Amino acid sequence: MTTHHFQPVVYYNTFGSHPPALRISPGDRVVTSTLDAWGGDAAGATVAGKPNPQTGPFLIEGAEPGDTLVVTLERLGPNRASGFSRSILAEHVVDPNFVRQLPENQLLDWNMDASQGTASLISDVARLSPIHFPLRPMLGCLGVAPGGGQAISTATSGDFGGNMDYRGFTAGVSVYFPVFVPGALFFLGDGHALQGDGELVGTGIETSFDVTFSVNLQKGKTIRWPRGENADEIFTLGNGRPLDQALSFAVTEMLEWLVADYRLDLAGASTLLGMMGECVLGNVFDPAYTMVCKLPKGVLAGLGQ
Amino acid sequence: MTTHHFQPVVYYNTFGSHPPALRISPGDRVVTSTLDAWGGDAAGATVAGKPNPQTGPFLIEGAEPGDTLVVTLERLGPNRASGFSRSILAEHVVDPNFVRQLPENQLLDWNMDASQGTASLISDVARLSPIHFPLRPMLGCLGVAPGGGQAISTATSGDFGGNMDYRGFTAGVSVYFPVFVPGALFFLGDGHALQGDGELVGTGIETSFDVTFSVNLQKGKTIRWPRGENADEIFTLGNGRPLDQALSFAVTEMLEWLVADYRLDLAGASTLLGMMGECVLGNVFDPAYTMVCKLPKGVLAGLGQ
Amino acid sequence: MTTHHFQPVVYYNTFGSHPPALRISPGDRVVTSTLDAWGGDAAGATVAGKPNPQTGPFLIEGAEPGDTLVVTLERLGPNRASGFSRSILAEHVVDPNFVRQLPENQLLDWNMDASQGTASLISDVARLSPIHFPLRPMLGCLGVAPGGGQAISTATSGDFGGNMDYRGFTAGVSVYFPVFVPGALFFLGDGHALQGDGELVGTGIETSFDVTFSVNLQKGKTIRWPRGENADEIFTLGNGRPLDQALSFAVTEMLEWLVADYRLDLAGASTLLGMMGECVLGNVFDPAYTMVCKLPKGVLAGLGQ
Amino acid sequence: MTTHHFQPVVYYNTFGSHPPALRISPGDRVVTSTLDAWGGDAAGATVAGKPNPQTGPFLIEGAEPGDTLVVTLERLGPNRASGFSRSILAEHVVDPNFVRQLPENQLLDWNMDASQGTASLISDVARLSPIHFPLRPMLGCLGVAPGGGQAISTATSGDFGGNMDYRGFTAGVSVYFPVFVPGALFFLGDGHALQGDGELVGTGIETSFDVTFSVNLQKGKTIRWPRGENADEIFTLGNGRPLDQALSFAVTEMLEWLVADYRLDLAGASTLLGMMGECVLGNVFDPAYTMVCKLPKGVLAGLGQ
Repeated sequence: MTTHHFQPVVYYNTFGSHPPALRISPGDRVVTSTLDAWGGDAAGATVAGKPNPQTGPFLIEGAEPGDTLVVTLERLGPNRASGFSRSILAEHVVDPNFVRQLPENQLLDWNMDASQGTASLISDVARLSPIHFPLRPMLGCLGVAPGGGQAISTATSGDFGGNMDYRGFTAGVSVYFPVFVPGALFFLGDGHALQGDGELVGTGIETSFDVTFSVNLQKGKTIRWPRGENADEIFTLGNGRPLDQALSFAVTEMLEWLVADYRLDLAGASTLLGMMGECVLGNVFDPAYTMVCKLPKGVLAGLGQ
Repeated sequence: MTTHHFQPVVYYNTFGSHPPALRISPGDRVVTSTLDAWGGDAAGATVAGKPNPQTGPFLIEGAEPGDTLVVTLERLGPNRASGFSRSILAEHVVDPNFVRQLPENQLLDWNMDASQGTASLISDVARLSPIHFPLRPMLGCLGVAPGGGQAISTATSGDFGGNMDYRGFTAGVSVYFPVFVPGALFFLGDGHALQGDGELVGTGIETSFDVTFSVNLQKGKTIRWPRGENADEIFTLGNGRPLDQALSFAVTEMLEWLVADYRLDLAGASTLLGMMGECVLGNVFDPAYTMVCKLPKGVLAGLGQ
Repeated sequence: MTTHHFQPVVYYNTFGSHPPALRISPGDRVVTSTLDAWGGDAAGATVAGKPNPQTGPFLIEGAEPGDTLVVTLERLGPNRASGFSRSILAEHVVDPNFVRQLPENQLLDWNMDASQGTASLISDVARLSPIHFPLRPMLGCLGVAPGGGQAISTATSGDFGGNMDYRGFTAGVSVYFPVFVPGALFFLGDGHALQGDGELVGTGIETSFDVTFSVNLQKGKTIRWPRGENADEIFTLGNGRPLDQALSFAVTEMLEWLVADYRLDLAGASTLLGMMGECVLGNVFDPAYTMVCKLPKGVLAGLGQ
Repeated sequence: MTTHHFQPVVYYNTFGSHPPALRISPGDRVVTSTLDAWGGDAAGATVAGKPNPQTGPFLIEGAEPGDTLVVTLERLGPNRASGFSRSILAEHVVDPNFVRQLPENQLLDWNMDASQGTASLISDVARLSPIHFPLRPMLGCLGVAPGGGQAISTATSGDFGGNMDYRGFTAGVSVYFPVFVPGALFFLGDGHALQGDGELVGTGIETSFDVTFSVNLQKGKTIRWPRGENADEIFTLGNGRPLDQALSFAVTEMLEWLVADYRLDLAGASTLLGMMGECVLGNVFDPAYTMVCKLPKGVLAGLGQ
């Protein structure tokens, strides 16, 4: 196992089969950094264009279409003290009859205190400036190159991952991706120091990140949608519109996971989901929405092996 | 404050302006029972028809259209040891291409152990029978009579509440309803001993309940959609299809709540929701789906008064 | 066959099991009138409340749940010279980002010239006043009482019909409804002198109508959704949200019709629909949207008997 | 004006900034051919891969981002006698509860008689083989290169056009596209000899085509979504999911067209659409659905200049 310290030079605004930035092997670890959603780096300088410029792609040796790539987010968090967010709920997130009441969006500036693990607004918005919001750093974008020669904007997502903006992509999570092209070509970016479910205002606290991740490969194991797990739960993600469709992808993927890896039949898998499943909103802002279907590991442990 | 012990005689399959079963006053408590979704009582006898026969309606003295009814669920849980559930995910919850793989639905029987607070399957499904699922009793249905002379099936929901099947309607929750008719006419029923987010199989563990609730009235306070709060959070519910629409109702209702009661402007309310909001699936099975938007009380406490 | 001249006295704002206004027999004809959407009659007097007060219900002798009611619209059209419409597209019909540009809705007044069969705006809107729009009178609402003791607002629709606002409900059309309650209980109202696909502004030219219809009964024939036919085509209607769901109801109903009555298997029915089917928007304004699936009778004639 | 006879050599499965196949000037005409959806040519040989291999791209000299490209379809139709179609409605087009009843899809072979302008099934499906279906040749795919370095699969569509599968793209139609990259880079392919609204079975009669088109340029005129016109009507297309969203794009684009080019304000444009607008289903099969909003030219003529 090798640890690579990788300083990105080129950034991409599409998930596609771009020239590899670094070749790594299953088991390797990478220490790198990401820009904020608008291309700002740790020094606050704009070094790439919108939207969500990506670090990578990392070519994983031996990855072939039909395999599953495992990315473990070991450490991640802001590498500067400033961040920004949109001030107003997105128009398509509220009742259409309410849109006229929404003021125009503004950019809000945040200050982050790494030692305290908190963020606060620099200017007062309503009466929020006294609040010290607890940081909960996560990656808005992570994914692999899609198949078929496609190059998909980093504004959106699909079965290859992408701009899913799910607040659960925090340190300690392992994420599973279908591999569509040789080498998988993994990208990451768009760190949020804090974000609620759904990315309802269209941003989290956007900032640049330092990220340490490691990769692994499940040869010959084929999945259809991104999956993940942390200490407490396993989860699947579906990306699409409307939310119903995103959910149906996530739920179906979870069914297939339970049947394939936990030796359940569809009635058993359905019953577990029906009684213990958790379904939360990933994002409802991006061109493709994200729904997440989760199961606590506790109940799975009860299944024995 | 009076405590009423109410034994229902008649049950209703619509939320409508039916003759009051009991007249109560703001501040009163009611100790009563509900049938299971198919009309079974504590003794397992079928005493009313499908779907979801309701106990009530309870007329709240003084309630007028434009007021808000507050119902606090003080105690609730199964009053018998048996329950049932559907065995297979609903067809409309999975990817349409996967539907042909779903086996036909069957009815599963559960045994509940009140002293242990657990439920287990009577027959083995896959390998689930050894699992002791933790009970988490909740009400699938609660709501008031809709306006305009409507009588809405207890299969569905709307701004009046109804069959929302949200797993968060547990003991300790206060629920707020818009009042549409004089006396509000509150109904409840459809207890689930356990259910995951979304009611993905179309049922929880369906059983009859004993329920203790109290009511209160906020005169002249008008809301549009059901709201709730428990020790940790405030939440709003939107009911409709697709999930996007249900969510937009819930999010808009939360915005209006934050502006009206927490002295925030729309930028402040948006920022709180954007950074700390939680959005979970209520149900995705019923004719109207339910999405829930939540905020932790902790961050609201930071606002001071 | 009897012709009934029926002058309504009471109007309803729900489709429900209200006391029959008139008992008629299969084969009978009814000559009656309907109010405009806001309750205005032929003299322009407001004699009933919003929304869409209905004439009826007409009890059809012998109709039982599981039968199909056939209503043939023989003649219909305005019985006064004035009508009104909303001036601006509904907020939920345009891109959410465009809503802020929409001016507030106003009421527009129309003058209708029965001898010319045209309508024109009384006040100038933009530069439309010189245009003589061709009248195309249709009924916005027609339907039967839903089952299960429900009373559904005349603002919306369902499998029982209701406020479908489909521009195709013109004279010469026969409409088929599932029967849910004894006597079927048929209602009609909400005449539009002219309306485009979708009722995009939320109204047609709203006015009061004279209507002549006849009824018939298909005993023991069960359908799920409203169907219709005119000289040129057969069609089915699905009501729900989003449009995808409404369409899926209409398409499935057409499949079942083709299989049951035209001796096609599902491949044959699919191929006819795939090559010759027409799918148009009924309404996208009401709480339930409407999609219509049509087949030209010409291609069906080619099937022989 | 030059007429180019262009024999394609390379075909593309993405809409993207590929090397131009031919450089043409505004006013030029191109006589070329397209493969069928699976890559079959006029001789029935498979010369390119799925899905929907495209002829092009054609670089239009002088086209810049922000301009509008006009493509007039002068002639188009099958260049061979054989075609194929799917036999069964797509799973996501019918009620989820009906999916289990759908048989597995099969491929149906068609024979086309150019002299008669008809098509018939080679093998009998149900009882359809005696029917001579009238040909109505159209292009399933036409579009320009999207911006931002994207390469989008020819399975889907967007604001750049793409696989819209709208039966209205017949000879005599002019289609307008936003230009996103220098030279516009126009593609075409996926001819259907016949198709109903919605492409409900997922195909039309798929075959290879000869196509003659000409191009023009509207410098400095910016549109957001594809537009079109024929002898009788103007129309706009929105692509997305669900149908509601696709429709909202099409309707908003039509509003903007009416305001910009027909000197109407939003009330006038809304009223025209509300009374005379037609909204039909383009496709409901592809990853992005298509809705079409139309206005008859007759009523527009009434506006004078």
